[in-house]
Amino acid sequence: MSEKKVPMATIKRLPRYYRYLSDLLRDGIYRISSGELSKRMGVTASQIRQDLNFFGGFGQQGYGYNVEHLYYEIGEILGVRTLNETIIIGGGKLGQALANYPALARRGFSVVAIFDINLELVGQTIGGAPVYHIDRLEEFMARNEVRVAILTLPKEASANVAKRLANCGIRGILNFSYVDLDLPPSVALENVHLTDSLMTLSYKIARQEEENK
Amino acid sequence: MSEKKVPMATIKRLPRYYRYLSDLLRDGIYRISSGELSKRMGVTASQIRQDLNFFGGFGQQGYGYNVEHLYYEIGEILGVRTLNETIIIGGGKLGQALANYPALARRGFSVVAIFDINLELVGQTIGGAPVYHIDRLEEFMARNEVRVAILTLPKEASANVAKRLANCGIRGILNFSYVDLDLPPSVALENVHLTDSLMTLSYKIARQEEENK
Repeated sequence: MSEKKVPMATIKRLPRYYRYLSDLLRDGIYRISSGELSKRMGVTASQIRQDLNFFGGFGQQGYGYNVEHLYYEIGEILGVRTLNETIIIGGGKLGQALANYPALARRGFSVVAIFDINLELVGQTIGGAPVYHIDRLEEFMARNEVRVAILTLPKEASANVAKRLANCGIRGILNFSYVDLDLPPSVALENVHLTDSLMTLSYKIARQEEENK
Repeated sequence: MSEKKVPMATIKRLPRYYRYLSDLLRDGIYRISSGELSKRMGVTASQIRQDLNFFGGFGQQGYGYNVEHLYYEIGEILGVRTLNETIIIGGGKLGQALANYPALARRGFSVVAIFDINLELVGQTIGGAPVYHIDRLEEFMARNEVRVAILTLPKEASANVAKRLANCGIRGILNFSYVDLDLPPSVALENVHLTDSLMTLSYKIARQEEENK
């Protein structure tokens, strides 16, 4: 693999390449030129070549890309075949939706437990995962391999839970709560700020109405 | 408002500014320098000034920013005070979670109906919104003001539903389904690709493990 530092913009495009390659394979297309891929994805052919060059290139002059090979390699880069034992913190409707979300398991995120303070949830099973009281977090993490935590709990509680998770050696956090978390560099972080997406959408709608006046 | 085209990078930072300003107001802080805001947000003071200059500047030399004024103005720019009557298409667990998500209504997204094909859901009320069969979409949109649709349905059905929504004059779509939608420019679009976030997270975890070897 290239030693050059991969730009964040390239990294952010990788999941989308993976998605498109997955669809190509599903449609029985095993070979594609950068031009054709460019047209489908709305990304310039030179951008695609540039992005993939960080990871060894892959393409062959006059042949294009081997879709299966590229799909496999990008999957490796994204770590999709790594099993990431996952816990969900916050068993409300969003947490429950994620516990039942098939794409989690398909991407190697196996939900092994859910934590909450709600005694009515504790002891139940959601999406095949047992619900424990949040007080038992450290005990559970000491006894089980847990690599990832998904935070779907109120923002007032998130910072403290994140600190507890970092102290237990969590590798990564997928944060749905409405705060920016302050974590040591040893913990990978990805935010899903749904309210930010809502506000970006209302901005775009307002701009279109401005332009159409 | 400035006539210059606002860069996408600036637009994407606006919701975060709004979030931080909201927290400052909640903590009773009504005045802040770009330096202090910069430290809190992890964005350079010059970036903040640059971003806000697209919208008229706001800051006063030696005073800093009036937090309340800035919060109000960014809210206006983001269109948070606009009422966006919203429908949810796909009444599964994720759609139900969103129908019950308080932040939607707080940002002006009022869920007025949910659509699904599941006859066991049709006729029920979720998060205060009635569930209708998807066949009644056009009828509902002809009789009611609907500005935004949230798509939480399987990807095979999304493209077709998106087309129907565009034909009914939808202003914006928040898309949770695992596809890129092809929409006319009159429809604002914001994607929330949870699987992309998962893959970005597994990439980051894998990279840290590489670096720690």
